[in-house]
Amino acid sequence: MGKANELPIGVFDSGLGGLTVAREIMRNLPMEKIVYFGDTARVPYGSKSRQTIERYSRQIVRFLKTQEIKAIVVACNTATALALDAIREEAGGMPVIGVIEPGARVACAETRNGRIGVIATRATIGSHVYSDAIHAIMPSANVIGKACPLFVPLVEEGWLHDRITDEIIMRYLDEVLEYQVDTLILGCTHYPLLRGEIRSLVGDDIVLVNPAYETAVSLAAMLKEKQLMNTKKPEAGEPYPYRFFTSDEPQRFADFANSILPIDVGSARLVAIEEY
Amino acid sequence: MGKANELPIGVFDSGLGGLTVAREIMRNLPMEKIVYFGDTARVPYGSKSRQTIERYSRQIVRFLKTQEIKAIVVACNTATALALDAIREEAGGMPVIGVIEPGARVACAETRNGRIGVIATRATIGSHVYSDAIHAIMPSANVIGKACPLFVPLVEEGWLHDRITDEIIMRYLDEVLEYQVDTLILGCTHYPLLRGEIRSLVGDDIVLVNPAYETAVSLAAMLKEKQLMNTKKPEAGEPYPYRFFTSDEPQRFADFANSILPIDVGSARLVAIEEY
Repeated sequence: MGKANELPIGVFDSGLGGLTVAREIMRNLPMEKIVYFGDTARVPYGSKSRQTIERYSRQIVRFLKTQEIKAIVVACNTATALALDAIREEAGGMPVIGVIEPGARVACAETRNGRIGVIATRATIGSHVYSDAIHAIMPSANVIGKACPLFVPLVEEGWLHDRITDEIIMRYLDEVLEYQVDTLILGCTHYPLLRGEIRSLVGDDIVLVNPAYETAVSLAAMLKEKQLMNTKKPEAGEPYPYRFFTSDEPQRFADFANSILPIDVGSARLVAIEEY
Repeated sequence: MGKANELPIGVFDSGLGGLTVAREIMRNLPMEKIVYFGDTARVPYGSKSRQTIERYSRQIVRFLKTQEIKAIVVACNTATALALDAIREEAGGMPVIGVIEPGARVACAETRNGRIGVIATRATIGSHVYSDAIHAIMPSANVIGKACPLFVPLVEEGWLHDRITDEIIMRYLDEVLEYQVDTLILGCTHYPLLRGEIRSLVGDDIVLVNPAYETAVSLAAMLKEKQLMNTKKPEAGEPYPYRFFTSDEPQRFADFANSILPIDVGSARLVAIEEY
């Protein structure tokens, strides 16, 4: 086993939402180190063009490569949807996993009636990337996509268990439910934080697919296949093998991270990402 | 009268909202030309740090100066709140008007009980810039500020006349109304688009101050004082003397602009603002 195994995984998102992916990696691959970058200065990506998102993603990959990583997880649906090819190119030979394909694969395995709903940002829905990924696996699937632009600000406002949030969820989901989907992909990294609320509103008969969890599962399989799994346990008393970087407001970043992660983030470091 | 009078006014915002200020300039100063820049690639500014907003604002001023303008209107509450000094410095001797002071001045003139409410983004409220501006004019005023982060996505979703929007307005305003304000400043450029809805919910006894309109009035006074008013009427058949620039998605920009402006915008031009 070479030293490459012990290098961290680079994880990035347009902002805070990708921390739900980092959380699943921490839970499911506890031996792996993580370098997380959240582009909070330029969030949200959801309303930006492909060209802009490609440029931003390339800058982030160039930054992550300065941190000596062994693989990249694109924990941002919009960047995965619009810039995965550019990211792979910029990454050179390093393995790259996006958040779209793992969720699409599980949705196809879970659906019984072939009707799959996808909720996400306007850009992700407009890109048809989930329906393309689903149709590549299950050409006969019926996919209904619905953009839910109010979900992210509702989560960031902290209105997670709230009558207004329930009304907005139902406003967005009514159309999807009328379509009689039996499987629903939570296609934006913030949305798993609304999962309990969505579950109680849609009932138990609909399978909710959490791409953050499925991405961690895919990452594990990929690391195993490429013999890149870290098998070296941290020494007792060593600091958490997680480093956090952000392009703006490190304190606000750390506050949100501490509210959803199982560890104490301590602090995040500021990166002038435009210079990469 | 020198040629300087005939130069356009540079107007900028973090995105689309500042078009409500451009609209008031068009209505109230119909002889003036306008160069508008909307930083849609980096919107919203409301959750970014002072340092980042200063850097962005300086880049925009440097771009606007390439367009031969005679004055700058900062049609963005957050940039006015956090970066007005940096903008003045970057502008050299050119006159600069922000959107904060004109609204503060009118609110102080209108209030009878000295209780003034301000609704705005989290950054504008957190900066206390409205209460500082109000207290500079009326030291005895009681100011209550309330951040309303869901208003911008509601406007951009187009849910302007909607039960959910009404509920969210009342959720945010309840606290402000309990404070018995008699004057309410709509301290974010998107909010005038909710004015009818807010008016019908708060009743006629509360004065609503629209900083977009008050900024146009202040601009007129300043141009007059500095003898910079344009008095040359456009020739018949000349194109509208308005030019629109944006850092992302020119088509989406033009669509929104056409939905709120009294003219046909035609198209917006893309600017690589990071290069300025």
